Amino acid sequence: MSTFDFGQETEKLLKWLGEFGKDPEGGVSRFLYKPEWTEAQRNLEKYMRQAGFAVHYDDVGNLFGRLEGSTYPEETILTGSHVDTVKNGGLYDGQFGIIAGIVALEYLKREYGQPLRNIEVVSIAEEEGSRFPYVYWGVKNILGIAKREDVENMVDFDGIPFTEAMRKAGFAFRPTERAVRKDLKAFLEVHVEQGGVLEIEKKSVGIVGHIVGQRRFTIEITGQANHAGTTPMGYRKDALHAASSIICAIMDITKGYGDPLVATVGKVEIEPNIVNVVPGKALFTLDARHTHKDVLVRFTEEVTAAMQEIASQAGVGIHIDMWMDVDPVPMDTGIVEIMKQQCEKDGLSYKMMHSGAGHDSQIMAPVIPTGMLFVPSHKGLSHSPLEYTDPRDLAQGVKALVGVLYELAYK
Amino acid sequence: MSTFDFGQETEKLLKWLGEFGKDPEGGVSRFLYKPEWTEAQRNLEKYMRQAGFAVHYDDVGNLFGRLEGSTYPEETILTGSHVDTVKNGGLYDGQFGIIAGIVALEYLKREYGQPLRNIEVVSIAEEEGSRFPYVYWGVKNILGIAKREDVENMVDFDGIPFTEAMRKAGFAFRPTERAVRKDLKAFLEVHVEQGGVLEIEKKSVGIVGHIVGQRRFTIEITGQANHAGTTPMGYRKDALHAASSIICAIMDITKGYGDPLVATVGKVEIEPNIVNVVPGKALFTLDARHTHKDVLVRFTEEVTAAMQEIASQAGVGIHIDMWMDVDPVPMDTGIVEIMKQQCEKDGLSYKMMHSGAGHDSQIMAPVIPTGMLFVPSHKGLSHSPLEYTDPRDLAQGVKALVGVLYELAYK
Repeated sequence: MSTFDFGQETEKLLKWLGEFGKDPEGGVSRFLYKPEWTEAQRNLEKYMRQAGFAVHYDDVGNLFGRLEGSTYPEETILTGSHVDTVKNGGLYDGQFGIIAGIVALEYLKREYGQPLRNIEVVSIAEEEGSRFPYVYWGVKNILGIAKREDVENMVDFDGIPFTEAMRKAGFAFRPTERAVRKDLKAFLEVHVEQGGVLEIEKKSVGIVGHIVGQRRFTIEITGQANHAGTTPMGYRKDALHAASSIICAIMDITKGYGDPLVATVGKVEIEPNIVNVVPGKALFTLDARHTHKDVLVRFTEEVTAAMQEIASQAGVGIHIDMWMDVDPVPMDTGIVEIMKQQCEKDGLSYKMMHSGAGHDSQIMAPVIPTGMLFVPSHKGLSHSPLEYTDPRDLAQGVKALVGVLYELAYK
Repeated sequence: MSTFDFGQETEKLLKWLGEFGKDPEGGVSRFLYKPEWTEAQRNLEKYMRQAGFAVHYDDVGNLFGRLEGSTYPEETILTGSHVDTVKNGGLYDGQFGIIAGIVALEYLKREYGQPLRNIEVVSIAEEEGSRFPYVYWGVKNILGIAKREDVENMVDFDGIPFTEAMRKAGFAFRPTERAVRKDLKAFLEVHVEQGGVLEIEKKSVGIVGHIVGQRRFTIEITGQANHAGTTPMGYRKDALHAASSIICAIMDITKGYGDPLVATVGKVEIEPNIVNVVPGKALFTLDARHTHKDVLVRFTEEVTAAMQEIASQAGVGIHIDMWMDVDPVPMDTGIVEIMKQQCEKDGLSYKMMHSGAGHDSQIMAPVIPTGMLFVPSHKGLSHSPLEYTDPRDLAQGVKALVGVLYELAYK
């Protein structure tokens, strides 16, 4: 396997695909059903056809390229990731999973010929939710769980309705009478880590055990705005002071739990936000993630109690709103085991880890046996034109995928 | 003195004066040299003339109404406050000091006839800095310490130069050859408290001992923005967490000092300020005030050291910028003593206190023996259309002024 330069080939194709939706303000902006999205899909289609894959789109625009299996025509191993990006995204998030699949399939076909089971690479229509306020449109359609009514009344930032955008791109809602695919036996997604752990720990491949669950909250503290000079400390109800105490308490509790728990207060807005006025209101968000639901629930309950206690002692009002509650998703243990064996067999530098970010795989996993492979993100940067992964790491990621696909489709 | 209803008369005149600059969006907006400012000054001029005062403007538009003294023509007792307001200000801030002076002079003239020393009420041109980025224009011109070059290149929010605005209002720079007035023997300013202490403590009159000194800082914390899901707690440099720890430490240190120290973190901005990104930057302000410079210096030094220590332990960068450093100003102890005696003699409900806000008096005090009297601000509200003081409290404030003016000008 080592004579072929997987890294160079992968990087070349990433740069080629990154031209479709290249943003004059930097990076790649490729939103669902926009002309640059269509351009990317059409060019991927053409490339895959030339590579000898059987190509088709589903109703909503997910693009599949297929190596036909010789022995088990009703069994398909699927790999890929999403083709859409965030605004000013990088060359790797999403599209690396598609290119890795293409490079792997080309290699397998060349080296080993026809597989026993079908292998398909998928360029998933949408994952990021960058154009419409809806995420996982692509994968939810593959699984037949997207709801037409969820998107029917949506418009993008230019007021263009979802339905119209889809129709103009040449696609339509999946007819309800069309049966969901029953041939998908496994889904493998290769993706950049979007964090700095692999780089810091000098590993090339991450094998994902779980995708974390997430709970997100908005917390509003109501104190009393007062003149900074004329209000003695004892007469104040300082919303920011209460918020600061709460933020410190959240971080202390979080550190007490240890990894893999993460909690982030990412956004703060205070009112009136003037140098010489005691803040009357403070609003902040809390994002908490863990691989196990029971821990996530216990942590957020403990933090909620602590927040209420601090607010009560400070004499300020508090309103806690949980507006996101996504359960953790374990990857398929059988696939994880195969991934480990392949990495060991091929001498790849790997690490068992979890995904702290959401991915198509978390929607797939409850329905289809699913596994994820990470490669490092330089400096942990993602959703940025500065996304970068060394070609040697890209190569190890693709090699791991090749090994697992071979195990699943050729044996 | 009790047969005349000082409260009713004062409130009536405040409402009358508040019509000049009444803002359709609420309250009073009366900016230096704007037509509504001129209207207010011209109407005050007319009112004072009709009341039998000798009226004149100085070069820059400070308006004086005078009761001539019979015995000491070279000695003048001055009282008053500023006629300009903030945007959407209230009926009391500034103009109450002018009206209190007018009501007091009318009463004194009616009851006691001509004083031994001149008494003048002044409607000071400007204090708030609402139109141009310059404060205390009025009082600095009375004292001859305003610098022409400080305002010569200033423009307001509409691009109108200071000089042009002044000229259109009919005024001009004080000629440098004109001597500064030497006859001012005392300045008395009556003002609303702009805080809630008098109301909470159920007192009608505050006698100001000191106007606090102020130091203001901007503190910038530099950490590292990271993905909220993929960055383990141990790999973070969370600028907001560090800022929160610092804010809590500032508040703890402040409370350790006790009254009259106040410290306020009023403004916070974080970057990128997104729910799922660990904050990479946090910027906040610190406003610290005390009546004694040595304490203010010691406190801010202690806080600075604590901030640097916390930042260092958190592994984040910190930059501390002090951009305001105003010394505390004591009021004249002789005048303060007379104020106390008068309040006791007239059975007024008073409290010795300090001013946590800046006033014309702090510019006057280093040059002319100065005293300030406060009346309560309902709920501590000021710089708001909701400013309110009960007429019974207004009455006590004016009565205290009458008593002090009598002591200073009739004896």
